[in-house]
Amino acid sequence: MMFIDQLKFDANGLIPAIIQEHKTGRVLMMAWMNRASLQTTISTGKTHFWSRSRQKFWMKGESSGHTQTVKDIAFDCDGDTLLIQVEQVGAACHEGYQSCFFRSLQNSGAAFKSTEPQLQTPEQIYGKM
Amino acid sequence: MMFIDQLKFDANGLIPAIIQEHKTGRVLMMAWMNRASLQTTISTGKTHFWSRSRQKFWMKGESSGHTQTVKDIAFDCDGDTLLIQVEQVGAACHEGYQSCFFRSLQNSGAAFKSTEPQLQTPEQIYGKM
Repeated sequence: MMFIDQLKFDANGLIPAIIQEHKTGRVLMMAWMNRASLQTTISTGKTHFWSRSRQKFWMKGESSGHTQTVKDIAFDCDGDTLLIQVEQVGAACHEGYQSCFFRSLQNSGAAFKSTEPQLQTPEQIYGKM
Repeated sequence: MMFIDQLKFDANGLIPAIIQEHKTGRVLMMAWMNRASLQTTISTGKTHFWSRSRQKFWMKGESSGHTQTVKDIAFDCDGDTLLIQVEQVGAACHEGYQSCFFRSLQNSGAAFKSTEPQLQTPEQIYGKM
């Protein structure tokens, strides 16, 4: 059976993909794929997603150059989530952090803190908007 | 500002939570939380979720004993995904694997393979169903 037939896409035809840095185990981001973006990810070896807000197919790094080269694609017991190991060029987060998960809860949720440095500003990555 | 006010719950009042083993960096599972299950996770230090299929609040490990003790709760740049570091008792997956992501794609998606051993059978975890 094909791998893709094991998967359950949601009512919008989407499946969440957790992106993990192969080398460090750092979880970099979570984004959504449809069947076409997953197939393109497999065939090109670069991550492609579906943007729910922009209703648009996109390759990670197409604007920033911060592409992701796929090392492994795993899927969970329910077939409704992907876990993709990548080699990340530059910062994964569009806000210039290595990981999108750069803030953590403190004091039982009363506050939060940044847990990693900003490597670049969005202006440095994308130019003036 | 409270941490929880930074978050965007979806149209069903849910937010996906990626669960990562603190000690090893292994991504164990992804499940959904509503505001109440997140607040209970924070106040008790044990992960609680919302089951979309059963429409039910549940504590991870309530049947299996395989609970998760929270070490850190991070959230992403868009505020629409959580990344929670835990100490996992036993196998995280209800199928008896350490991680729910125990299968990976092979041969460009033509096949898949198991990437870790099954530690227990579901019958051993939950008894006869």
